[in-house]
Amino acid sequence: MKNFTYYVPTKIHFGQGMISHLSELSESGSRVLMVYGGGSIKRMGIYEKAMKILAETGLQVFELAGVEPNPKVELVREGISLCRSQKIDMLLAIGGGSVIDTAKSIAAGTCYDGDVWDLIEDSSKIKAALPVYTVLTLSATGSEMNKNAVLSDMSRNLKDSMSSDLLKPRMSICDPTYTFSVPKGQTAAGTADMISHAFENYFSPVKDAFMGFRLGEAVLRTCFRYGPIALAEPDNYEARANLMWASTNAISGTTKFGTDVGWSCHPMEHELSAYYDITHGVGLAILTPRWMKHILSPETAWKFGEYGREVWGISGEDDLKVGEEAIKKTAEFFFDVLGLPRTLTEVGIGEEKLELMAENCTPRLANAFVPLTKEDVLAIFKDCL
Amino acid sequence: MKNFTYYVPTKIHFGQGMISHLSELSESGSRVLMVYGGGSIKRMGIYEKAMKILAETGLQVFELAGVEPNPKVELVREGISLCRSQKIDMLLAIGGGSVIDTAKSIAAGTCYDGDVWDLIEDSSKIKAALPVYTVLTLSATGSEMNKNAVLSDMSRNLKDSMSSDLLKPRMSICDPTYTFSVPKGQTAAGTADMISHAFENYFSPVKDAFMGFRLGEAVLRTCFRYGPIALAEPDNYEARANLMWASTNAISGTTKFGTDVGWSCHPMEHELSAYYDITHGVGLAILTPRWMKHILSPETAWKFGEYGREVWGISGEDDLKVGEEAIKKTAEFFFDVLGLPRTLTEVGIGEEKLELMAENCTPRLANAFVPLTKEDVLAIFKDCL
Repeated sequence: MKNFTYYVPTKIHFGQGMISHLSELSESGSRVLMVYGGGSIKRMGIYEKAMKILAETGLQVFELAGVEPNPKVELVREGISLCRSQKIDMLLAIGGGSVIDTAKSIAAGTCYDGDVWDLIEDSSKIKAALPVYTVLTLSATGSEMNKNAVLSDMSRNLKDSMSSDLLKPRMSICDPTYTFSVPKGQTAAGTADMISHAFENYFSPVKDAFMGFRLGEAVLRTCFRYGPIALAEPDNYEARANLMWASTNAISGTTKFGTDVGWSCHPMEHELSAYYDITHGVGLAILTPRWMKHILSPETAWKFGEYGREVWGISGEDDLKVGEEAIKKTAEFFFDVLGLPRTLTEVGIGEEKLELMAENCTPRLANAFVPLTKEDVLAIFKDCL
Repeated sequence: MKNFTYYVPTKIHFGQGMISHLSELSESGSRVLMVYGGGSIKRMGIYEKAMKILAETGLQVFELAGVEPNPKVELVREGISLCRSQKIDMLLAIGGGSVIDTAKSIAAGTCYDGDVWDLIEDSSKIKAALPVYTVLTLSATGSEMNKNAVLSDMSRNLKDSMSSDLLKPRMSICDPTYTFSVPKGQTAAGTADMISHAFENYFSPVKDAFMGFRLGEAVLRTCFRYGPIALAEPDNYEARANLMWASTNAISGTTKFGTDVGWSCHPMEHELSAYYDITHGVGLAILTPRWMKHILSPETAWKFGEYGREVWGISGEDDLKVGEEAIKKTAEFFFDVLGLPRTLTEVGIGEEKLELMAENCTPRLANAFVPLTKEDVLAIFKDCL
């Protein structure tokens, strides 16, 4: 079992109506930069509610709209200029992971004397950051309670993350009703994203982190149970709430206890998004069952057996057989139950750049559950076509 | 599902050798009051190691030794005087829950202009507290990552807690090797304590907090698996580590998501400890199966069925039968597997004060999973004789 440090200082106000806690922002000053995407938070009335509470609290609000999925470094640079010129005290992100990651990047970039992409290349350069607050509207990335911010520079086909305890949000409002209007495709992709986060820690060579693995299974079972319910009944509070808390826990450290391992599917997927701007959760769903199939072997069967029995309730003594069945069920869940695209071809990715992308991500796969070579990654990519 | 606020700012350094992080205390000033029990931390070499690191960090250390189980308010008052006269900046608790709770109470009491027991009677009076750091040597109470401090005033037969976010430790060192020398009886009682914490949130009338209940089961299964291993092999790192992380999570909020419910066995046990100074975990173990038996009914059977199936793997459709079997297994675990005392008689408690104790705790049982009257409590107490 590996040593670890657990540090999750974010205060989470969870439940319907908890947006009233935005009044707590006054603890960090008086000038807020509100970051969001398009018009959806206005249509849903969240914008208006937030503005009202912030005004009543005596806060002065500046705005930065237009965050896109796979958030772009250009908007971050714009936000940094705004923070400096307007002497902003804190960021308020209202949206999903892309919006929160944009706010985090601005928060760090404002306090750094150089270009913000430097912080992606070397996160140890993050020495300070403005406080970040969030109102979550999409259950997926877990950015509302973690230390990461993923950014893209499409001009250079780069998608990568910065990471620092200083980026952990000060406070996040998680109101499941704000996800009622999330479209089916995004609900499905978000569910795939959180499942993948749980998998990345769960598939670990460590054998004795019993407690961590059981916590991971709790997250996985929650996703497998409530993903389909949220698709069928978008305003089912029970489903949206359980998914929301699963997304927050999947990547905050809750499931990581003692399991320390390099990630597998995320580095591969970041290449797909960097070159083709596809939805992160979709890329993960396409990759995951092929990755599992590729690494299932007599050496790794013990873990797949555990996964099959504990998460899917598959019976049987033979780990390989249980594992194969579990992988089949995982694929069925992503493609038949959630209805996500089944192949890279379907999302417009062909053979052309597979080798280049495999080359790019291989260095990050050396400490994975099963370390992957360029040839492994290429085989997995090709199996996804 | 109930709304909730999750806030766990404590940084946990978990694993062998993590005591080196005591150097981080310098962030809070230079004058430390080290609080501990008897000689065990000296015999184990923890005292010496801590002193060396603190000296190297340039910290000035003052000492308050002699904390007893069911920590007493008199020593807390002594610590408060010491903090004031020596202008102490922070507390460092090295020990189990009693030591940590003593340090927390001193931390709050030092910043309060009145007697510290006032803060037990009304925790909203806690407006500030010195920072508390801990080195955990016993897996049980979870005080290393929660907001509670339980104190006893034996002169008035009072045992009760204060509670405030300000009491959450700044940082805790959880090194499983420090629990290798914990005697069998204390290992068993500590395991019963953490199981009870998980039960208190798990047995909730809320039905839709799926994720919270699965996390609770992860804690319970960890305790049931590793309690006996730690008893049989005291220096089994895997067992001690999993138990330690279970104890920390059982009461930090991890398992509480949306399950909000008044506690049942803890208010009853606090009376037993207040009048007879018995070990908290022993009292909980004696009470728990009788409480379960008392409240099992067609109305509550659904929850006991869930418990039996998910935690003990009992099969069957009939919730009442599965529940009865699960209660039997719970009792066997406490008394036969952990070897804890089976009755109140065995720990020197007779009939004399049962009625008085039942009277005292009943007001706190009104919001329990099954609200309990004085007659209910008395019946449970008598069943424990």
